[in-house]
Amino acid sequence: MQVTVNKSSDCQNSGMQSQFCSQKGILENIVKRRFILAPAYEIYGNTTGLFDFGPTGSALKSEIETVWKNIFVKEDDLLEVHCTNLTPCAPLVASGHVDRFEDFILYDTVTKNYYRADKILEELLHKIKPMTESVQEDIRKLSGFKVAEFDELIKKYKLKSPDGNDFSNAMPFNLMFKTNLGPLSVDSNNTAYLRPETAQGILCNFKRLLECNRGQLPFGVAQIGTAFRNEISPRNGLLRVREFVLAEIEYFYDPEASELLSPIQKEYIESAPAIKLLSADRQKTSDQSVSSSVSEALKSGIIKNSLIAYYMAKTQTFLLKIGIINECIRWRQHMSTEMAHYANDCWDAEILTSSGWIEAVGIANRGDFDLKQHSSHTNRDLTALRVLKKPREQEVLKCIPVKREIAKQYKALTPVIIETLLDTKTINELKTLYDKNERLSLTLPNQDVVELNKDMLSFTTEVVRLTDELFFPKIVEPSFGLGRIMHCLLEHTLKKREDDRYYFDFPILVAPYKCILMALINKEELVSITSKLKMRLAKAGIFSKVDNSNASIGRRYSRADEIGIPYTITVDFETLEDNSVTLRHTSLLKQIRIPISEVVDFVKRIFSEVEQWPGKYEFI
Amino acid sequence: MQVTVNKSSDCQNSGMQSQFCSQKGILENIVKRRFILAPAYEIYGNTTGLFDFGPTGSALKSEIETVWKNIFVKEDDLLEVHCTNLTPCAPLVASGHVDRFEDFILYDTVTKNYYRADKILEELLHKIKPMTESVQEDIRKLSGFKVAEFDELIKKYKLKSPDGNDFSNAMPFNLMFKTNLGPLSVDSNNTAYLRPETAQGILCNFKRLLECNRGQLPFGVAQIGTAFRNEISPRNGLLRVREFVLAEIEYFYDPEASELLSPIQKEYIESAPAIKLLSADRQKTSDQSVSSSVSEALKSGIIKNSLIAYYMAKTQTFLLKIGIINECIRWRQHMSTEMAHYANDCWDAEILTSSGWIEAVGIANRGDFDLKQHSSHTNRDLTALRVLKKPREQEVLKCIPVKREIAKQYKALTPVIIETLLDTKTINELKTLYDKNERLSLTLPNQDVVELNKDMLSFTTEVVRLTDELFFPKIVEPSFGLGRIMHCLLEHTLKKREDDRYYFDFPILVAPYKCILMALINKEELVSITSKLKMRLAKAGIFSKVDNSNASIGRRYSRADEIGIPYTITVDFETLEDNSVTLRHTSLLKQIRIPISEVVDFVKRIFSEVEQWPGKYEFI
Repeated sequence: MQVTVNKSSDCQNSGMQSQFCSQKGILENIVKRRFILAPAYEIYGNTTGLFDFGPTGSALKSEIETVWKNIFVKEDDLLEVHCTNLTPCAPLVASGHVDRFEDFILYDTVTKNYYRADKILEELLHKIKPMTESVQEDIRKLSGFKVAEFDELIKKYKLKSPDGNDFSNAMPFNLMFKTNLGPLSVDSNNTAYLRPETAQGILCNFKRLLECNRGQLPFGVAQIGTAFRNEISPRNGLLRVREFVLAEIEYFYDPEASELLSPIQKEYIESAPAIKLLSADRQKTSDQSVSSSVSEALKSGIIKNSLIAYYMAKTQTFLLKIGIINECIRWRQHMSTEMAHYANDCWDAEILTSSGWIEAVGIANRGDFDLKQHSSHTNRDLTALRVLKKPREQEVLKCIPVKREIAKQYKALTPVIIETLLDTKTINELKTLYDKNERLSLTLPNQDVVELNKDMLSFTTEVVRLTDELFFPKIVEPSFGLGRIMHCLLEHTLKKREDDRYYFDFPILVAPYKCILMALINKEELVSITSKLKMRLAKAGIFSKVDNSNASIGRRYSRADEIGIPYTITVDFETLEDNSVTLRHTSLLKQIRIPISEVVDFVKRIFSEVEQWPGKYEFI
Repeated sequence: MQVTVNKSSDCQNSGMQSQFCSQKGILENIVKRRFILAPAYEIYGNTTGLFDFGPTGSALKSEIETVWKNIFVKEDDLLEVHCTNLTPCAPLVASGHVDRFEDFILYDTVTKNYYRADKILEELLHKIKPMTESVQEDIRKLSGFKVAEFDELIKKYKLKSPDGNDFSNAMPFNLMFKTNLGPLSVDSNNTAYLRPETAQGILCNFKRLLECNRGQLPFGVAQIGTAFRNEISPRNGLLRVREFVLAEIEYFYDPEASELLSPIQKEYIESAPAIKLLSADRQKTSDQSVSSSVSEALKSGIIKNSLIAYYMAKTQTFLLKIGIINECIRWRQHMSTEMAHYANDCWDAEILTSSGWIEAVGIANRGDFDLKQHSSHTNRDLTALRVLKKPREQEVLKCIPVKREIAKQYKALTPVIIETLLDTKTINELKTLYDKNERLSLTLPNQDVVELNKDMLSFTTEVVRLTDELFFPKIVEPSFGLGRIMHCLLEHTLKKREDDRYYFDFPILVAPYKCILMALINKEELVSITSKLKMRLAKAGIFSKVDNSNASIGRRYSRADEIGIPYTITVDFETLEDNSVTLRHTSLLKQIRIPISEVVDFVKRIFSEVEQWPGKYEFI
């Protein structure tokens, strides 16, 4: 997936964006103070582009991954795999990443500071006064520049580095992290890279995976894993980082199949609610999305591939389920100029944040580019078998060796020559030479070369009936940047109470901790009840926290709210008398009294959405 | 954790080992054929030491991780984090990995093939005839060799490489994968490594994590993540690989606390069953473990730290729960010579396999080595605060400046000199000079140096009452090699039926797929029932597979058994009449008939161990 922040803004939601902006400082404060996430190895100074997830961030990430797996892997019976982060060089040469996965860099010739060429020049051009139409034109063209064009631009405007020094020439910089497998040696190429996407591991296992699906298409393969990108100038936060988690699906299909979707998938599209679309066509004249149902967009041809439509609908469900705001999701189609080198169509789910619309999910049609590349680079078969609906008749060129003529000259070699002539691999080449009256050199399996004359062979064409054929499947690839989605989710769920305190209003499904247990005061007889209840919740698979500190109950409520714990269970002196506890709902600020013996079952049923809060219980 | 295969063999279980050996070929065949796991990027040739998990392997791995998290993280309320794989150089210098995390290599001076020095020389020495006591002595000493000793050994025995050529000198080879953050530059040190263990990320976040636990000790932090080790000669299978998943806990505690364990943890140790122990002491005279309860071993001092004992008991539970055979687990204490550089005690859970006893879990006492190192390398406070049980009186040296004498010479400088003299940091140094009658040079905050004479100051000691103090917490680190554990689990659960077919008898908790759905024959009215039931299972969080191929039901049963699916649900023509299906138990080979409407709830209750198979239903 491409990971650029899109600057075009859909103004319908500028109100939301400014709300996110107004809370940005508060969010950053909570994220850091409560260790939701933090710069990695920060005690050693500034390590940009690397972030650690603290306890709350980790649990949130893990719950988002679980929801993703339930919706995408378990419901659709996908094959899930885990491939290695370390990737040998050869497959990345085939995939085009060694040659084409790069940005351009410049450095200040005095300070030696590095800059990403397009970003720094854009910044410098924006400062030029007066801002003429021609400068604006140059700014627009920057992202498509080739290496020499950067140098020309620097010369044209006499641009200097931020420290006032000359720039070096621009040079390409590959964005993959490079290392070596085993000891470095002059004689062996043991270069390896950290994967820039998770897809290649899946693609190189295609034949095994096809076998897991008993040779049948279509089928999808999913992988959640880390990917790496050696950003030249990483930004703060989770938007442009050097190490990030992707959740990717490679969905293999036969482009000639009359129907790509199962009945259940078709039904899914039919019943999917409206989404906001901004097609490539529309972007030529407007940056405003239009609302449409997925099935309408598919019928009218705005979305061209039914699998892409299915995954758009499914992604929308996923994003809503984890708590992204519906009005803040739009689908933008890539313009032909911005597509990754392997893709021929791509729709991004963009999510509105304080930084504008951010690309969080990409659903690309990779076609058969990768499988063909890997096949030709390895000489291995990476095709699937298609049974033809109608057997097809096909003309096939055949060679007719003239045994008597061959034997005259070649004696004992005759059988092997005839066998080689009947081998289809060389026949087209031979026919060309024959037609051109050129020398007929034939290489035998033992690498000897024999010269034939035209009397020794002739050609004919035969019609063959084909009932099946091999082909390269095509691929639709939904790719989710989970870190970015998490960033958006934090912005979307941060809410303010009337008393000016903040809390995260996470859906119960993704809440990092499902509940917090508190003893009203720190007395052993109350504390031991919280410990036992916590253990029973854990055994039922419900992750809870305990806060038996000496802080007031109000203070402890605030601390729990701030990391989005949706329910609080309080053990008090009444508990010792009647074995009941208080259960408080964070965002509603309402509470019920419930027998301890019913707590585990009740919260379990609420959390699995079988029951609605407050169930049979009454507010107190 | 250290990842060596232990050669000493506990002969009590040689029967089990030979059973594992006899099934080894069959296991390898199933693992490869059914894509449980496979060499990464195999179509590009031999990439040793890198393995991909296929669908069944991935699901198994994921279930094992879930069990681990439930037992270790959720039950004990640990803080779970996810730190980056990429690690800047500085923290790994502090942790000792840049200097000491290495093996020794040799190369063949003609072929340039690399060898791990200790391994290849051991192999060559084993071939020497006659095998004298002195050769055996040299073999034993190999693993502790320093670099020059390898060269001497080669000279002594005139050893040649396997291709008959001279060896190079031995040289150290760091086992971390090296790369660069951002563009390589002569002026900046941007070297980074892939983490060799997950611990350092946790340790460098210690202060934040302590804060998450409101400043209180003890507390534990858990992380499941990838670690990397650039093995010189990786072996086949999951035993010696270059990229592997670790599940690690860093448990921080106050070594002076009167009690390290909570009441629940103490109870846990008391009720833990017997385990097999092979202490460092015992290994001097025997390689046979002895059976003991954990609490006995702790009381008698065989296990010295109660946290280590707790984690040994808990680990035993975990291993049994996922399906490792009890008799095939033993606990071996590290000899002082084999400990990692950061550890001062370590107990390994070793599991018996076809390759002998394999280290799968290490529970090490890391002491305060790492926190002290990181603190001194960053000059950052990485201590915790301990409230003293009894306030302690401590003598403190104080300086008494003689204002009049100082003012005579230094006039306006007097206040700053007095302030500097009262600063405790310089006082011990100054007293030494004073006592030795040497020149009293005092550096002022502005870096000016003034010379004092003995009239200008005197010293006294005061008694101060301390109520708390800062200290470096110590750490117990349980570290699980999940890939190795999975390898052992596959060996332990592979069973043979009477009809010579094999199946995995996974505990339901870790079974990759919980059930498989089959339509008796591939007819739309039956198939659609399986699809709907599958969706209902998915929504209840139960991962199932569907096999509606045209193969016979028996063939499909075998295919499902071979990847360890414990239950089969069959939809047949009776289903159309009475809405019931057949539920078959894989290892018992028994089946019941159950209404469709009850299936989801019933399997859910069996899977969460609330109900026993076959419940209220009768075998048919």
